[in-house]
Amino acid sequence: MARTEHVIAVDVGGTDTKAALVAGTPGGVRAVERRRRPTARHEDGDATAEAVVEQVAALADELRAATGREAAALGVVVPGIVDEAGGTGVYSANLGWRDYPFARRLAERTGLPTAFGHDVRAGGLAELRAGAARGLRSAVIMPIGTGIAAALVHDGRVLDAPGEIGHVDVGHGEPCGCGQRGCVEARASSAAIARRYAARAGHEVRGAAEVAALVRAGDPDALTVWHEAVDALARGILQVAALLGPEAVVLGGGLAMAGPLLTDPLRTRLDELITFQRRPELRLAALGDEAGCLGAALLAIDTLEER
Amino acid sequence: MARTEHVIAVDVGGTDTKAALVAGTPGGVRAVERRRRPTARHEDGDATAEAVVEQVAALADELRAATGREAAALGVVVPGIVDEAGGTGVYSANLGWRDYPFARRLAERTGLPTAFGHDVRAGGLAELRAGAARGLRSAVIMPIGTGIAAALVHDGRVLDAPGEIGHVDVGHGEPCGCGQRGCVEARASSAAIARRYAARAGHEVRGAAEVAALVRAGDPDALTVWHEAVDALARGILQVAALLGPEAVVLGGGLAMAGPLLTDPLRTRLDELITFQRRPELRLAALGDEAGCLGAALLAIDTLEER
Repeated sequence: MARTEHVIAVDVGGTDTKAALVAGTPGGVRAVERRRRPTARHEDGDATAEAVVEQVAALADELRAATGREAAALGVVVPGIVDEAGGTGVYSANLGWRDYPFARRLAERTGLPTAFGHDVRAGGLAELRAGAARGLRSAVIMPIGTGIAAALVHDGRVLDAPGEIGHVDVGHGEPCGCGQRGCVEARASSAAIARRYAARAGHEVRGAAEVAALVRAGDPDALTVWHEAVDALARGILQVAALLGPEAVVLGGGLAMAGPLLTDPLRTRLDELITFQRRPELRLAALGDEAGCLGAALLAIDTLEER
Repeated sequence: MARTEHVIAVDVGGTDTKAALVAGTPGGVRAVERRRRPTARHEDGDATAEAVVEQVAALADELRAATGREAAALGVVVPGIVDEAGGTGVYSANLGWRDYPFARRLAERTGLPTAFGHDVRAGGLAELRAGAARGLRSAVIMPIGTGIAAALVHDGRVLDAPGEIGHVDVGHGEPCGCGQRGCVEARASSAAIARRYAARAGHEVRGAAEVAALVRAGDPDALTVWHEAVDALARGILQVAALLGPEAVVLGGGLAMAGPLLTDPLRTRLDELITFQRRPELRLAALGDEAGCLGAALLAIDTLEER
């Protein structure tokens, strides 16, 4: 990019929607002004999609008014199954839409050149260009939160592929919400860790962060649940290593806040299990929960550059 | 390609080496003259690599003499771990070399512009450009023989990735030659099918083709072993479907000669196991054991086009 461009970037989440007016410079991207709202929802998935379009337009107006800046483009990312080339939200289990033409509707509603993408892949793009995966040719960028998914980077690009590492069968046999058994996500997502600890210990916890604190305190139930989560993650990572041979795995999302409490035993478990596969380096994500929004901004900027 | 070019293509195998003088036309590739030899071998892996280089040069001379044609380039593919960009054979378990600079040595020895690649990925390239995967944007091209590997096609290109679908853990727990347990290959390779049938039935068979004949005849041991192979293949394919979402899986190698005896139960098993994944179409490879050689020719032709 020859000069600074401003774009509106929106990361539509299952719970909250994050928006920012982002400055794209030759040196990178930087959020100038941010907003966060509960995602608009209706009973009907298509009505939810319509409401999301309205919410994006309102956030764009608000960010422009607050900064006094015009925006050259809009970038929006959503969860679920996304057809990036076609500009449609194919399916969101959580938000309910099916085959909704987001790119076209957003462009009509805002009058801005619009880029549309997938939240996890966009977050991976941000980590690749401006975060923990910078300079890598191949990587798996893996946010771990309520669910687990991955952006697959190969030959310096984020593949337009499902990356559903959370739903790889690693053999533990427990059922998953997706209908399969043995999924990584059924043991290693933040939600699974909290749920499995509660079932074992007989009392609720606020989330995986509380389980992490109990691991540090030596609580035996927490240690078991944590160890089983680490084992599932290691086995899932090995499957990707056999198929794609990434240089590094970048762990993000809420669970990565545990830092070395997660990466140290995970590295040990990978060392125990690995045979012929390329040994991926383990890294922690650098951009936190802003990755999706910055990725949406990068998609918007790429759209401008292609013109 | 504007006009017909002739190239020498060589597929170095663990047992046999196949060579051809190939005509590349605007319409595709066609072998004009073929040779097949036992692969040159020595105790020492580097000596084997040197002997392979000599064998390739001798085959090139022979093919040129037999056809009276000059060759514009050379394409050579080898098994094992291959660094395509660096032009080296990183490791072959079977042939023993480590970090051997094939591309440079072959170019020096033959004086021809030389393309160097991986046998399975080159075979996948041939199926993609001129075989069963023609026109697909994404596919898994999976030869099943003594071992099982895959060429991963994404966005119309063969990824420079390990593609070791044979060494994905699908949970059956049996040991594999690679040091892991539960690998697809330990139940579903031609070698595993023959070995497991012999262990169960108490008598040797000549290979998986004989087991396939016994399946057709209703032999219960053969049916069990075949069913377990199909289950392992289905579970391996599902892992790739979750990660990469290919449009089709193209089955090749010796085992694919079984045709619908393989694809019909595999399709049924995939239907039983699949939940959210994209359902890949199952196809049989079109180019048989010539795929690697034609892929080597395509790599050589691509080298000429880049000039």
